[in-house]
Amino acid sequence: MEYFEDMVVGTRHSFGSYAVTREEVIDFASKYDPQAFHLDDAEAAKTHFGRLSASGWHTCAMTMAMLVENMKSRKHAGLGSPGVDNLRWIKPVYPGDTLRVESELIEKRRSKSRPEMGLIKTHMNTFNQNDEVVMEMTSNAMVSVRDQSAPIEE
Amino acid sequence: MEYFEDMVVGTRHSFGSYAVTREEVIDFASKYDPQAFHLDDAEAAKTHFGRLSASGWHTCAMTMAMLVENMKSRKHAGLGSPGVDNLRWIKPVYPGDTLRVESELIEKRRSKSRPEMGLIKTHMNTFNQNDEVVMEMTSNAMVSVRDQSAPIEE
Repeated sequence: MEYFEDMVVGTRHSFGSYAVTREEVIDFASKYDPQAFHLDDAEAAKTHFGRLSASGWHTCAMTMAMLVENMKSRKHAGLGSPGVDNLRWIKPVYPGDTLRVESELIEKRRSKSRPEMGLIKTHMNTFNQNDEVVMEMTSNAMVSVRDQSAPIEE
Repeated sequence: MEYFEDMVVGTRHSFGSYAVTREEVIDFASKYDPQAFHLDDAEAAKTHFGRLSASGWHTCAMTMAMLVENMKSRKHAGLGSPGVDNLRWIKPVYPGDTLRVESELIEKRRSKSRPEMGLIKTHMNTFNQNDEVVMEMTSNAMVSVRDQSAPIEE
């Protein structure tokens, strides 16, 4: 099991391979983001997207799927997330794309109010098969502390 | 049709009524966020969530569904979004909750590089049926300018 104490600022992980299908793009957008450029080829062609593209929230969801798979492979027990700073959709994601993620741990600190928890900040880039960054974000997460009696360093 | 010129900073909208079902929570989490506390009652009970709760990304997706419905009712033609600042998951969302959204337009400016577009910044709170804020975010969006020949004010 990976605990807060095991995590080293500067550590990078590279993971995931998510094939974006037309069926899934339309299914997600139909439920959650039914704007024409996420549903219809002809409408999408009239916009700066050029062709049918995935909802940005779908790209978040696909990135999360890769992240959770990576966390499980590291036996990292996340306790959830308070939120995300600066989520940016940089390039459209198209059916046929294959996505992957690179992450870097940029900050860690013990929680003062909940000494059993640590707070980590991770910068994540989601790439397409052409190594273009399609999305970036800085995510915050809560992780378990192994030795809860250890003093909290300032 | 609602254009950039029609939008007034300070305008608030209140909209949506989204019934969160157990089936949808588990379906979304199975695909995109298969952490135990989003899938299993007994595992969720061991965590600070207390019981089965929706993925934060699912709350984003449900909020987007309400936003798109509201945009359509206002005949507001969005051109997509470059991203979100400070997305915060404040309280868990549970099956049985009913969500709604309050938004406030906090900033607008013409794009200098693309004079046919305006950029707007909107603060959004997602509430549950107890009027508790479960999520907040500041979203950025691109909207069509009606009179593209109008000078860009500084």
